[in-house]
Amino acid sequence: MIRGNDPILLTPGPLTTSLETKQAMLRDWGSWDAAFNQVTLSLCRDLVDIVGGGADYVCVPLQGSGTFSVEAAIGNVVPRNGRVLVPNNGAYCARIVKICKYLNRAVVDLAVPEDQPATAAIVEAALRADPAITHVAQVHCETGAGILNDLDGIAQACRRLGKGLIVDAMSSFAALPIDVKDAPFDALIAASGKCLEGVPGMGFVIMKKSVAEGCSGNSHSLALDLADQYAYMQKTAQWRYTPPTHVVAALRAAVDQFKAEGGQPARGARYAANCATLIDGMRALGFQAYLRPEVQAPIIVTFHAPADPAYDFKTFYAKTRERGYILYPGKLTQVETFRVGCIGAIDANEMRNVVSAVAETLKDMGIRSAAPALRRAA
Amino acid sequence: MIRGNDPILLTPGPLTTSLETKQAMLRDWGSWDAAFNQVTLSLCRDLVDIVGGGADYVCVPLQGSGTFSVEAAIGNVVPRNGRVLVPNNGAYCARIVKICKYLNRAVVDLAVPEDQPATAAIVEAALRADPAITHVAQVHCETGAGILNDLDGIAQACRRLGKGLIVDAMSSFAALPIDVKDAPFDALIAASGKCLEGVPGMGFVIMKKSVAEGCSGNSHSLALDLADQYAYMQKTAQWRYTPPTHVVAALRAAVDQFKAEGGQPARGARYAANCATLIDGMRALGFQAYLRPEVQAPIIVTFHAPADPAYDFKTFYAKTRERGYILYPGKLTQVETFRVGCIGAIDANEMRNVVSAVAETLKDMGIRSAAPALRRAA
Repeated sequence: MIRGNDPILLTPGPLTTSLETKQAMLRDWGSWDAAFNQVTLSLCRDLVDIVGGGADYVCVPLQGSGTFSVEAAIGNVVPRNGRVLVPNNGAYCARIVKICKYLNRAVVDLAVPEDQPATAAIVEAALRADPAITHVAQVHCETGAGILNDLDGIAQACRRLGKGLIVDAMSSFAALPIDVKDAPFDALIAASGKCLEGVPGMGFVIMKKSVAEGCSGNSHSLALDLADQYAYMQKTAQWRYTPPTHVVAALRAAVDQFKAEGGQPARGARYAANCATLIDGMRALGFQAYLRPEVQAPIIVTFHAPADPAYDFKTFYAKTRERGYILYPGKLTQVETFRVGCIGAIDANEMRNVVSAVAETLKDMGIRSAAPALRRAA
Repeated sequence: MIRGNDPILLTPGPLTTSLETKQAMLRDWGSWDAAFNQVTLSLCRDLVDIVGGGADYVCVPLQGSGTFSVEAAIGNVVPRNGRVLVPNNGAYCARIVKICKYLNRAVVDLAVPEDQPATAAIVEAALRADPAITHVAQVHCETGAGILNDLDGIAQACRRLGKGLIVDAMSSFAALPIDVKDAPFDALIAASGKCLEGVPGMGFVIMKKSVAEGCSGNSHSLALDLADQYAYMQKTAQWRYTPPTHVVAALRAAVDQFKAEGGQPARGARYAANCATLIDGMRALGFQAYLRPEVQAPIIVTFHAPADPAYDFKTFYAKTRERGYILYPGKLTQVETFRVGCIGAIDANEMRNVVSAVAETLKDMGIRSAAPALRRAA
């Protein structure tokens, strides 16, 4: 790799961002100043536009990582006597279950296999079996395995049955199609450092306006009180507490680039090409993707670890890193895997290059075949 | 002001930071990578060193603004059946009271006049009057007015009476002397974007190691669970959830500059010179500082608004901003004031310049005298 350069981040975030986005952080903004307020307001408008939210939806930004915004959404949108259904096929679904328990919200943990999507049928059956459920909290793209869950179908089931819907769209927002017409939701959460290609440090919750205005008093936390943050911003155009000004400025620059690229369709197409290039190249080396192609989101790909006894992840990681690429460990409980992200300010060229780097690494480690121990029946 | 340059931020944060600090954000770090873990670990060590914490104290960083860390400290350190005394002489003290109420921690709100410091005598009397109090939560420098409260005296009273102590040192950390030998505390909170001169986006809590290890299960929030964050970091050297990597890298660079400058004594001396230069210059224009010099912290100065009918803050702010300086509104309830910060990567030269800019602005607004309506009896 080029001396002094950073390795390319092939992870679910933080990502490799453009130089233009990082350069937006070379300025100091006053958090009380009108110029900064304008940055916040324009960002919120653009984020609502990405899901076609129009006048019925608002965006409430929040300091912290995406998980802070997920917890805030649960704590604000679900009343204290609410009951939450979580179709659970991975680590980020499990995190929502954990949040509900911390917040004393009753939770129904609906196990779905890690290699199967959460579907409208599964959710609808669970809702009919337990009518006391008030809300569904769903992860759109579960990056534990990289699987795409059925947002539109689940949203429509929720609407039919009169249930609230909270969507963790952390790793899908801006990359995969989301439209409030097809997927009416109460709240949808994403963050600066994912497919918008900003830097990490803030999340945001896109909320139905009526929900944002009606959820005051639910929050278990002052810092995470979205209703309070929303009301204060409506009044002042300012964040309640010090915003991460440089992160906000970087996100403004990143969203400008997103729009210039052609918005979600263009970004989704670039990531899909990245993903296809990666999977093809890795397959040629003998690797096998964990998920069936039909349910693979073009965000991050889980590969089975090679069965070859010369393989160990730590060495594999270190040697690929030396060549300029940062991979990500697997997060599945049953099988040994690793993950490679397809997102960030990168294109298919980087994916071809990481495949070359992996090929070199295998040779270096004396691994003849990257084939996994168990082949799934086709 | 120079075309394209940012105005100087004379606020309690975000601050004007050095170019070197901002340039540290021109890189993308993997949050799982050993190189980044090293940044986090070295930062935590340096932050504990600043208060002489040695092996008995640990630093737990947290995503979000400083208020997130204050809430986390209250929620983790104070058990659910605890009772918190807050000597309250300003807006940030009032925020702690509000946090206690959100978190269902019993709170004793001890009113202290905004122009008087919280002292050991006041706190000790309150503790003796209500032996059920388990913890004192104190703001070291209350930037509402800019007053310095007696940290060492209050800490020693807490030790004598066997009470826990939580210190909000947001705006004093790294600028004013704090040493665990003189001020033994359970937890002390500060943030990246204050006197360390980093950019905003993360806070941290310096905790007695025994407290960090013993407070598991208290937290009302997953995102703000310091005990969990600490345990995870001990095991992995990683943050539990995506860290604001660029903010962390900027803080690393800022702390390097802090050490090179000569640490707290040098930084405190620079701010004290800034503060004296500002007050002298403003006094020459007829302005009167709100606080007596003995209790004025060299962080931010509250000035009485001029009595002249031609004065209004909005115009005063806008016209001073045009000249390159961002002032801050007052936060007192009883008297009209405005504030001018003395902190950030600036020196007495900038303070002389802002005084000139204010003089020009007064002339521009047709204000003959900056004298306030009420003169405090000397």
